[in-house]
Amino acid sequence: MTLNGRLLIGGAERRGTDGEIRGLDAASGEPQEPGFGGATLADLDEACRLAAEAFPRYRETRPAERAAFLEAIARNILELGDELVARCVLESGLPRARVEGERNRTVGQLRLFADVVREGSFLDLRIDPAMPERKPLSRVELRLRNISVGPVAVFGASNFPLAFSVAGGDTASALAAGSPVVVKAHSAHPGTSELVGRAVATAVRECGLPRGTFSLLFASRRSVGEALVADPRIKAVGFTGSRAGGTALMRIAAQRPEPIPVYAEMSSINPVILFPAALAERGAEIGRSFVASLTMGAGQFCTNPGLVLAVEGEGLDAFLAAATDALTAAPAATMLTPGIHASYCEGVAKLAVHDRVETLGEGRAGERLQGRAALFATSASDFLAHRELQEEVFGASSLVVRCRDAAELSRVVAALEGQLTIALHLGEGDVEAARTLLPELEVKAGRILVNGFGTGVEVGHAMVHGGPYPATSDARTTSVGSLAVARFLRPVCYQDLPAALVPETLRDGNPLGLPVRTDGHLG
Amino acid sequence: MTLNGRLLIGGAERRGTDGEIRGLDAASGEPQEPGFGGATLADLDEACRLAAEAFPRYRETRPAERAAFLEAIARNILELGDELVARCVLESGLPRARVEGERNRTVGQLRLFADVVREGSFLDLRIDPAMPERKPLSRVELRLRNISVGPVAVFGASNFPLAFSVAGGDTASALAAGSPVVVKAHSAHPGTSELVGRAVATAVRECGLPRGTFSLLFASRRSVGEALVADPRIKAVGFTGSRAGGTALMRIAAQRPEPIPVYAEMSSINPVILFPAALAERGAEIGRSFVASLTMGAGQFCTNPGLVLAVEGEGLDAFLAAATDALTAAPAATMLTPGIHASYCEGVAKLAVHDRVETLGEGRAGERLQGRAALFATSASDFLAHRELQEEVFGASSLVVRCRDAAELSRVVAALEGQLTIALHLGEGDVEAARTLLPELEVKAGRILVNGFGTGVEVGHAMVHGGPYPATSDARTTSVGSLAVARFLRPVCYQDLPAALVPETLRDGNPLGLPVRTDGHLG
Repeated sequence: MTLNGRLLIGGAERRGTDGEIRGLDAASGEPQEPGFGGATLADLDEACRLAAEAFPRYRETRPAERAAFLEAIARNILELGDELVARCVLESGLPRARVEGERNRTVGQLRLFADVVREGSFLDLRIDPAMPERKPLSRVELRLRNISVGPVAVFGASNFPLAFSVAGGDTASALAAGSPVVVKAHSAHPGTSELVGRAVATAVRECGLPRGTFSLLFASRRSVGEALVADPRIKAVGFTGSRAGGTALMRIAAQRPEPIPVYAEMSSINPVILFPAALAERGAEIGRSFVASLTMGAGQFCTNPGLVLAVEGEGLDAFLAAATDALTAAPAATMLTPGIHASYCEGVAKLAVHDRVETLGEGRAGERLQGRAALFATSASDFLAHRELQEEVFGASSLVVRCRDAAELSRVVAALEGQLTIALHLGEGDVEAARTLLPELEVKAGRILVNGFGTGVEVGHAMVHGGPYPATSDARTTSVGSLAVARFLRPVCYQDLPAALVPETLRDGNPLGLPVRTDGHLG
Repeated sequence: MTLNGRLLIGGAERRGTDGEIRGLDAASGEPQEPGFGGATLADLDEACRLAAEAFPRYRETRPAERAAFLEAIARNILELGDELVARCVLESGLPRARVEGERNRTVGQLRLFADVVREGSFLDLRIDPAMPERKPLSRVELRLRNISVGPVAVFGASNFPLAFSVAGGDTASALAAGSPVVVKAHSAHPGTSELVGRAVATAVRECGLPRGTFSLLFASRRSVGEALVADPRIKAVGFTGSRAGGTALMRIAAQRPEPIPVYAEMSSINPVILFPAALAERGAEIGRSFVASLTMGAGQFCTNPGLVLAVEGEGLDAFLAAATDALTAAPAATMLTPGIHASYCEGVAKLAVHDRVETLGEGRAGERLQGRAALFATSASDFLAHRELQEEVFGASSLVVRCRDAAELSRVVAALEGQLTIALHLGEGDVEAARTLLPELEVKAGRILVNGFGTGVEVGHAMVHGGPYPATSDARTTSVGSLAVARFLRPVCYQDLPAALVPETLRDGNPLGLPVRTDGHLG
């Protein structure tokens, strides 16, 4: 398949005429063919109009039909074969094995949401039967189901060019919820985006769905994405990226005549708390596994361990010695884009010259656009006094905070902003101390994990990839796992409708065999 | 029990020193004893501090303990007996039967949430067991539960001095979710608020809960409520009131360093659509029942039918004749406050002099602070051209929009803002026309009902009292019914926790016997 650099507006291909973007070879920074024409506001308007037109039919697709569509997308992505992998490796600089794994995750997510759709709990079907004889007032009949909030805007993420991009988690969960999707492709991987976008558009056609169910836009300027969030036909936004980018979209959404929810996954330093017994038992071992997690994928994970908290002592010394050794030996790695590389270098340089921060070590030097891992340390009192030390440095950089005792460590925890994950390393004697800390951790993070690192995000039913602000804009939801479908739904109640008007999912006799709660009880 | 006009800050009574408010005799406007001292910012600070301190213990109350607390509140409210009813009648001007009914609803809501807490589905417990042998990567163990978002600020509503005030729906659902609550009492019924507040505070003591679980503040100035929403320890807001008031709180919440959700139920005109066959069969009968709904409680319901849409013809003429007759005979009724009465008179006067609006009739004149019902008419084209005709007039005023045909009626529906309810009156031949309109109605309203009016809000499992903006600030939730508990929850995931750290609700063997989803299946 030859890339053509065209927009996909409701299934129709069209060259964008507002400037041009190009994918770069991430390793060299060399611009690649073809150029991708940027969407005009007229293109955007048409994509939103078609999405709104598709909405009434698409949201009423039966579970089996919608699930088959999600599976068709998965199949079509796999059928892109090595062309997709090669282009994604080129544009992202990520290793082939990682890209192949990410493709499997992307396909797995789509299939998971197909299962979610078929199972039907996400509809939260409820029936409270009428009680005509109730005194003093008769009771009406009520039926409830969730419907999609409406068309959704998805902003592709740079760091997961497949799993959080054109057909990634946000798109899959929005489509599962019954929302048409307009994707603004991330400029870091337009070729990857086009290939996946065509796979989705093909699935729309194959399944006989309205063409506005999916559109893909490239944009050469920020204002196009902003106009997408401001468009009155868009009813929710999924975004993964920087805090500045996420909060800008939140502001636009809040200032619309009709404010809408923005699900922005933004900024997390994913504290790792090393407890004393764990450090005493295996400080060095934890140090090595920490560096493996820190440097994986050039540290470009939302769940990258950017902060380590521990009480001073021999165990921490052993951790630091092993971590510094491992880090010093870690090869440099190509970063996703020249811009991300530049930001990373700037963040590291700021820490390196910070007068309350000590540089513990640096990874091996590499090519021009490769990031070198970096490890820093500071004291708890300095960390508490300098809020800027909580700022995320996106990449393989981490800061160790040395605490004098458990009480000081608790104060550091209390001062943390919201996080995606907090990891605890526990030994035999640490359980009581961890129990004391747990209530504070739960209000700081969406996921708490023990004796591991947050960098592997399992796509399942019990996963939460979310957390209090500024980790995300909305701690009430997750962007990974089957629960993500909930963010694009709203409940509607039907009172005393004649049988002929009741939505099929809520009909007497439960013709689709879905889970229904009757008078509050699952039947 | 003698009213003392004191704040209730974490169970301690204290006289507020920032000005004073007084309840008024709603019928005469006469100020009543005692004066209620307004909270200072220091009082507010202490209430929020105590709520934050109460949070870790309160949110971990077991289902049985939390349910017993909700039931104790209900019992204590009933034990206030006639004193509560009499004070509420005095302050609200609502008839005794209505106040008694509302008390029953309030008590019923608290008991419903006690059942919800015991049943446990609201926790959304999920376990994805580990798969150590999975290839290529072993699978970690994940457990998920919902926890409370944190302390909640509740703003009492004027129009439901019991069911949407100090121990009303928002408070009950927040307490059910595990959130401590700080209530800002509505100035229109401070005596009612004090009585109910003491009932809640007594229940806190009786159940041995942390004192900060509940506080009640009176405020003599708006800035106190604004400071409550801005307080960093408050994590969500429940509000029922005007659009101006709700959007002001939304702005404050969005501009906090940590933005938080605001659930504001604000503005709805609850369109009633009269279909041709229904009008032909029983136009006059619908006209009479419409006026009964319109004038109930002086029209001071969020779900009051403020807009009627119908195609011109004999049926509509019969409806209008009967409605106008009934309205003209309707007695004036005391309104909740002099301010609400003044706003109502202003809204009616604006319509009366609007050059595209015809006055069909007015109810009987009454005392100085009583509202007279009013019925107006306009054409669809004028309605579409004048956005101001969609503005809510809080009280017993309604506007009939005469449409030339079904297509014009559809255009009016498409131009509507978000609503709490839309009511359809259907006859034998109307079902197909209603089916065509239904998809548009679902995206406009939280509840669609047939052959009735929205003014009765059944408190059950399948109720939605919510809807797209500006009906509410957040269409993803409801403020009435058991589903309301969901708005104050967020999911937390626990990965590979040692058994000793797993929250009790998620332990192996399900010791509390709650519904748990294992690998996506309810067991």
